Amino acid sequence: MSADEFSFISELARFAGQSEESLDLADDGALIGKLVLVKDLVQAGIHALPDDNDADVVRKAIRVNLSDLAAMAAQPKFILLGLCLGTKSKPGQMPALAETIRKECEHFAVHLIGGDTVQGSGPTTVSITAIGEVKHSPVLRSGGQIGDNVWVSGSIGDGALGLKWLQMGQQNPELSKLDAKDTDYLAQRYRWPQPRIALGYQLASLAHCMIDISDGLAADAGHLARASNLSLVIETEKIPVSAAFQNWRNRNGSPAEQWKTLSAGDDYELLFSAPMEARREIEVVAAKTGCPVTRIGHLEAGNGVVLRLNGAVVDWPVSGFTHF
Amino acid sequence: MSADEFSFISELARFAGQSEESLDLADDGALIGKLVLVKDLVQAGIHALPDDNDADVVRKAIRVNLSDLAAMAAQPKFILLGLCLGTKSKPGQMPALAETIRKECEHFAVHLIGGDTVQGSGPTTVSITAIGEVKHSPVLRSGGQIGDNVWVSGSIGDGALGLKWLQMGQQNPELSKLDAKDTDYLAQRYRWPQPRIALGYQLASLAHCMIDISDGLAADAGHLARASNLSLVIETEKIPVSAAFQNWRNRNGSPAEQWKTLSAGDDYELLFSAPMEARREIEVVAAKTGCPVTRIGHLEAGNGVVLRLNGAVVDWPVSGFTHF
Repeated sequence: MSADEFSFISELARFAGQSEESLDLADDGALIGKLVLVKDLVQAGIHALPDDNDADVVRKAIRVNLSDLAAMAAQPKFILLGLCLGTKSKPGQMPALAETIRKECEHFAVHLIGGDTVQGSGPTTVSITAIGEVKHSPVLRSGGQIGDNVWVSGSIGDGALGLKWLQMGQQNPELSKLDAKDTDYLAQRYRWPQPRIALGYQLASLAHCMIDISDGLAADAGHLARASNLSLVIETEKIPVSAAFQNWRNRNGSPAEQWKTLSAGDDYELLFSAPMEARREIEVVAAKTGCPVTRIGHLEAGNGVVLRLNGAVVDWPVSGFTHF
Repeated sequence: MSADEFSFISELARFAGQSEESLDLADDGALIGKLVLVKDLVQAGIHALPDDNDADVVRKAIRVNLSDLAAMAAQPKFILLGLCLGTKSKPGQMPALAETIRKECEHFAVHLIGGDTVQGSGPTTVSITAIGEVKHSPVLRSGGQIGDNVWVSGSIGDGALGLKWLQMGQQNPELSKLDAKDTDYLAQRYRWPQPRIALGYQLASLAHCMIDISDGLAADAGHLARASNLSLVIETEKIPVSAAFQNWRNRNGSPAEQWKTLSAGDDYELLFSAPMEARREIEVVAAKTGCPVTRIGHLEAGNGVVLRLNGAVVDWPVSGFTHF
């Protein structure tokens, strides 16, 4: 996000904050009664590959929005689809696109209830409004407490590695050494995010604060830390990675590159904090929902993100990340 | 709308219709309890001029969505803003854009509660989700009854004429003869649609069916007729026009061109039907809300739109319109 965009959103938040439903524009969504509303845009070439077909772009748009609902412990109920077809959109692909939308709705048990479709003159751009319901109240970014454990779901870095594979393929010296099983897995992780809906919903009464990792582990940890006004400490050696990521890491000697990949985003995993006493219950919920979780750190007094490696504080390893 | 888009939306409606909240995707919005949700996209160069600045595009996007709420007799409450900045977006204009959004929210008494902003690689594209509340239930397109009067608010054709002026200016032989007061008015009507919110909300208990005129009088009359499964008869000589439109019409000899302009869209007036007995009350509501209304026809058995001129049925005057 550029400085101009940042100050733009600050300015919007200044007057939007007058309504409690906006949650000060500081969270993943808005709250009207028990309804959580999220709305994220996806554009081909920016959040999806330039040559992805419309079904890929729409699928990704639906899933990243459902991930935002999961991050607020909301059960997805409805979506509205704003579809601006691009100059590369092919009329012949419309039936397949409709079928993709039907399947996504069925898979996630959500109903398509509105929106519109227009032919635009740029790349395909998709705006999803997703609406979910919380049991009692949402989990916000701001609820973290000193002493909380910090947890993350699934594995980190796969989406970024999948994107690199899709962009560079065999031209990337390390990725080209992976077998097809690994590269297929990584590409799939980029293309088909898995919103952690069941996990997020079950964490409603356990988690103090929560976010989904879209901007990257470091950036989103920073969002939680800032909103909770605390310091979020990550024990970097505990960050869970997949077998495919491990295979890539074994072939890549650069810690900077590894770090960059771990924090590049497109994970759509949940990052949350919870009190020490909830540890056992969280593990039960993880087992029940089939979504592994890993403790990677804790919250303490202070502000911002602190990285540790085997107990010692390490400098932020990549200069580009110093803006957190 | 192309045949492909039409069949795409039919396909979506087939499975979306399983939830009552979708209203079969056949209306201006969706309904969750007493909340009406609408979501329309606006792209620079398609629904706004290619060189419009972002504030113009966003303002128009907000207003056309509020017009959709008005058409369902819903009082606007909240908006979510999906803003995909274009390649022509200028960082220096962001503060003015934020100020425009603030003013629009204030003017229409709605709260901005969420959304997102991204830098895209095409024209500026804006998706607004607007949320309103109905007093008891919304007015749908499908509620028309035989014998109903058909009414329209404000004046028709100004938006289309304003667009023509903005596109052609002095190069248009007839428009160039209008004085600046008229051309300014017409341009304003195109750029700053006036959603008929108070009127729409007050019509909740009076109107049988309602729509806002965005696609054009003929097209939207067709939507009402089809949804209500009736024939909508328009006494064409009764269609209300502004003084500026009248001044243009006096200088333009072509009935075909006049018709095309009257049915070109971008009016954002309300078209609705109501029983004969409600006539007096509707006039009271119009006076109270400061929005003139005109009876332009009625509903009868049959289907589609019938045009009459001084009592006699006239052929559809412009060949391009035969698809209704």
